[in-house]
Amino acid sequence: MFLKNDWYMAAWAAEVGSAPVARRICNEPMVLYRDAAGSLAALQDRCCHRGVALSLGKVIEEGIQCGYHGIVFDAKGQCVHIPGQDRIPAKAVVHYYAVHERDSIVWVWMGNPDEADLSLIVDYPYHGDVKNWPHREGLIPVKCNYEMLIDNIMDLTHLPYVHTKTIGGGTPTNVHSKAVMKTERMPRGVKYSRWLLDSVPPPTYAKAIDFPGKIDRWQEEELLTPSVIIQFTGGVDTSQRPRETGNREGGFGMRVLHCIVPETETSCHYFFSVSNGFGQDDPANTDLVYDQVYPTLLEDKVFCENQQAIATEFPDENFVDIRSDEARILYHQHLDERLANEKKLAKRDAAVSA
Amino acid sequence: MFLKNDWYMAAWAAEVGSAPVARRICNEPMVLYRDAAGSLAALQDRCCHRGVALSLGKVIEEGIQCGYHGIVFDAKGQCVHIPGQDRIPAKAVVHYYAVHERDSIVWVWMGNPDEADLSLIVDYPYHGDVKNWPHREGLIPVKCNYEMLIDNIMDLTHLPYVHTKTIGGGTPTNVHSKAVMKTERMPRGVKYSRWLLDSVPPPTYAKAIDFPGKIDRWQEEELLTPSVIIQFTGGVDTSQRPRETGNREGGFGMRVLHCIVPETETSCHYFFSVSNGFGQDDPANTDLVYDQVYPTLLEDKVFCENQQAIATEFPDENFVDIRSDEARILYHQHLDERLANEKKLAKRDAAVSA
Amino acid sequence: MFLKNDWYMAAWAAEVGSAPVARRICNEPMVLYRDAAGSLAALQDRCCHRGVALSLGKVIEEGIQCGYHGIVFDAKGQCVHIPGQDRIPAKAVVHYYAVHERDSIVWVWMGNPDEADLSLIVDYPYHGDVKNWPHREGLIPVKCNYEMLIDNIMDLTHLPYVHTKTIGGGTPTNVHSKAVMKTERMPRGVKYSRWLLDSVPPPTYAKAIDFPGKIDRWQEEELLTPSVIIQFTGGVDTSQRPRETGNREGGFGMRVLHCIVPETETSCHYFFSVSNGFGQDDPANTDLVYDQVYPTLLEDKVFCENQQAIATEFPDENFVDIRSDEARILYHQHLDERLANEKKLAKRDAAVSA
Ligand code: FES
Ligand code: FES
Ligand code: FES
Repeated sequence: MFLKNDWYMAAWAAEVGSAPVARRICNEPMVLYRDAAGSLAALQDRCCHRGVALSLGKVIEEGIQCGYHGIVFDAKGQCVHIPGQDRIPAKAVVHYYAVHERDSIVWVWMGNPDEADLSLIVDYPYHGDVKNWPHREGLIPVKCNYEMLIDNIMDLTHLPYVHTKTIGGGTPTNVHSKAVMKTERMPRGVKYSRWLLDSVPPPTYAKAIDFPGKIDRWQEEELLTPSVIIQFTGGVDTSQRPRETGNREGGFGMRVLHCIVPETETSCHYFFSVSNGFGQDDPANTDLVYDQVYPTLLEDKVFCENQQAIATEFPDENFVDIRSDEARILYHQHLDERLANEKKLAKRDAAVSA
Repeated sequence: MFLKNDWYMAAWAAEVGSAPVARRICNEPMVLYRDAAGSLAALQDRCCHRGVALSLGKVIEEGIQCGYHGIVFDAKGQCVHIPGQDRIPAKAVVHYYAVHERDSIVWVWMGNPDEADLSLIVDYPYHGDVKNWPHREGLIPVKCNYEMLIDNIMDLTHLPYVHTKTIGGGTPTNVHSKAVMKTERMPRGVKYSRWLLDSVPPPTYAKAIDFPGKIDRWQEEELLTPSVIIQFTGGVDTSQRPRETGNREGGFGMRVLHCIVPETETSCHYFFSVSNGFGQDDPANTDLVYDQVYPTLLEDKVFCENQQAIATEFPDENFVDIRSDEARILYHQHLDERLANEKKLAKRDAAVSA
Repeated sequence: MFLKNDWYMAAWAAEVGSAPVARRICNEPMVLYRDAAGSLAALQDRCCHRGVALSLGKVIEEGIQCGYHGIVFDAKGQCVHIPGQDRIPAKAVVHYYAVHERDSIVWVWMGNPDEADLSLIVDYPYHGDVKNWPHREGLIPVKCNYEMLIDNIMDLTHLPYVHTKTIGGGTPTNVHSKAVMKTERMPRGVKYSRWLLDSVPPPTYAKAIDFPGKIDRWQEEELLTPSVIIQFTGGVDTSQRPRETGNREGGFGMRVLHCIVPETETSCHYFFSVSNGFGQDDPANTDLVYDQVYPTLLEDKVFCENQQAIATEFPDENFVDIRSDEARILYHQHLDERLANEKKLAKRDAAVSA
């Protein structure tokens, strides 16, 4: 079950040109394309004539042309041309989705397109701030329910076990378990921060910056349900006392955007971007950080896919919560409330229209 | 659900020698082989002893010998030898199918073999007419219900979209939608013809014949349910006025036999042969036409497999019929009538024997 | 349905070191490992925290550490450490299995570990008798229910059909069907022997020993339910009259241990070892026999996997028993009795504790 009345990332803006792109979001097959004027469209990826994917067709002046018998649909899914006949049957429509491009991201609204609320799109201005936060984008397909991957990020105590070779290494594991944590419920989700004080710089950080000694590290994460996590992590020399002074200048810093989007009940699209906050004028620094983060996400993929496989086999086995689950638990409370609320509203609407 | 009381193509005659061939027809696993005298046999591909496939065995003098413990069955599925014992239990039989070879095709009757009616086999004498219609044979496995592939052929308006590079190209698409069509219910199925007058020769035709100008093209198709389509297409110089005069000599002509046979509910065997009616003394001409048709069928496969995948996921979604569906609709009426009739007769037989 | 109150082979002892080994036995996912002191442990392969496989973790001093968030479990599945917290919840346990190493084999008891009865482990002292019975070990994954593979071995009349190129060849098939057979119910299973008198040495034997003429061959098999078969086969010069005199010296002899262990309902682990009883001082002789047996088992795999696929598709089709099924039938009687008995005891225990 997925939240419908919200925006999900459907693609990187750069992925969608005039060639149709097939993508499944919240278990709904979708075709994304841009018309001649560059406007985005998102339709159900199924022609209403004989049911083939519209993504097998091509974009022409009037809209998207089915590749099988040539029926054409406009950006709202309305049939506008049927070869060999003038009359267009009233039923000749396919479902369309509200779609919006912002911050290099294609967002789709999974609920009623008439109710799509642009104010709910998560802003991520760093993508446009090339001077201070140059970035690289990626997409990893992961065979697990999207909640498992969000759980993964909401509990960073996995770092010293899963990511020893990159961001989790360098520190004795008790540094992680002694981290100063703060977890807060927010209007749109959960905020979560950890300070790892007096730490040996982990391999990723040490590759970027030549730290003279130990560092104080911050890990800040904000989850905005259903599927966005905005992460800011970094570290500066311990002597700078960043936690007390707020001074985070001059060390290592990176921002990671995670958009973890349901594909099916047991698979998701892991969109991510990595922005570096040091040596911004040299693209090699962006590459350096990306090349550290990417394999780290592949390590997460291994654990989450394993977790999904076992959960599929043993749906009723119990779980035991531990202290580090705090943020994860708040996340699920939040999501469950939103889902329950959406259900209640749907019921009320049904009653009103009855 | 498949029609049982009729013949389906099971193999090209050349495929079946003394080595057993495993093939699934109408979701029934079958082993086909030829005995020492060259006679064909078709049995259920499951030994009644421990249930392994007889196609893992070998053909010996007395019949087919199971490869596991050596039990031998004759061409009617009767057990004729059990190693180490003389008594043959009455239950030691496997189901057999009536099988018949004609026109280079192995036909099987899927109903009661005692009721197999040879007069119902579709004749295709062109296979034997090597002088006028030299041919090449093929088989493509397609992962869709066989009806979808027949639908494909019953609506040739897909040509200018799916087959632009071969038989569908050359003409503006409105030539296709303005084609003069005639569709008729026949005792055994549906006949369907189109004339594309005053057309630019499509790439396939132009490769075969050096036409001086525009041509009149005919496309004739006869569907004989459940699974045979006999196609005759070609084109001659427009000045010859073939539609009025009946004179089709001297241009491009080819005959294609399509036997589209259910393998399972969601897969089929696409047997086809291509015969050329020009330059018959040079095998290169047969190759030329085959090499144009084969990739065309692979293009159809892409669309039909996509259609099946979507139909499997959305079994209840609606379809919208258009004008070009006329022949397709007649085909389904015809098939549904035959299926209903078969069901009624089966019920009556059950009542009589009760 | 599998017998629970007995030992199954889970691994070759040499397979299990300090790196965790994932293996599914009787459809239960298990992790096997050895602690620093070399003691074996077998736990359910699912961390009780978030459900990932413990086999993704590593063995540390205190036990096995989950690779995701670092929880540690001891050899009895008791949680002994949770990073970042002192309190260990009572529910933080995973199921453990009684495990025992003997004769180079890791055995697990699938029932209640408190009731594990070491006296029920099948002894196989030949593995330790390097002087007389040097051996090599193997493991073949087979996609069939384990009973089908045991059936395979309990009916050796398949030799001349399936294994023509190795142990089944050389003799006319009627030598096999005329074999002198003896089949006995034993307390733990079924014993089964065949004498093939006056036989041409089959290819495997002839490669090992330079026989001057015909031989008398014995094939002895003892099945100990649920999953062990101890095989002794060989042949000596017919003039030695081994059947009457008991003198089996000087010819070809080999012992094969078959441990055929359920993985799932439709797959099994085929553990086997091959020991040669001739030319024991030259390892090339062990290799020679292993290299004959291994492809033979792969031939069995083909038939058993085919049998499983067909049984899955046609679960209700009938089978016809023949004379050579005698041992197989006794095996199933024996297994069914044990299963029924286990069910009865479980019911009684449930009643007592109610
Ligand atoms: S399936 Fe799209 S036009 Fe026919
Ligand atoms: S399975 Fe065919 S003879 Fe045994
Ligand atoms: S899943 Fe094992 S410690 Fe979290």
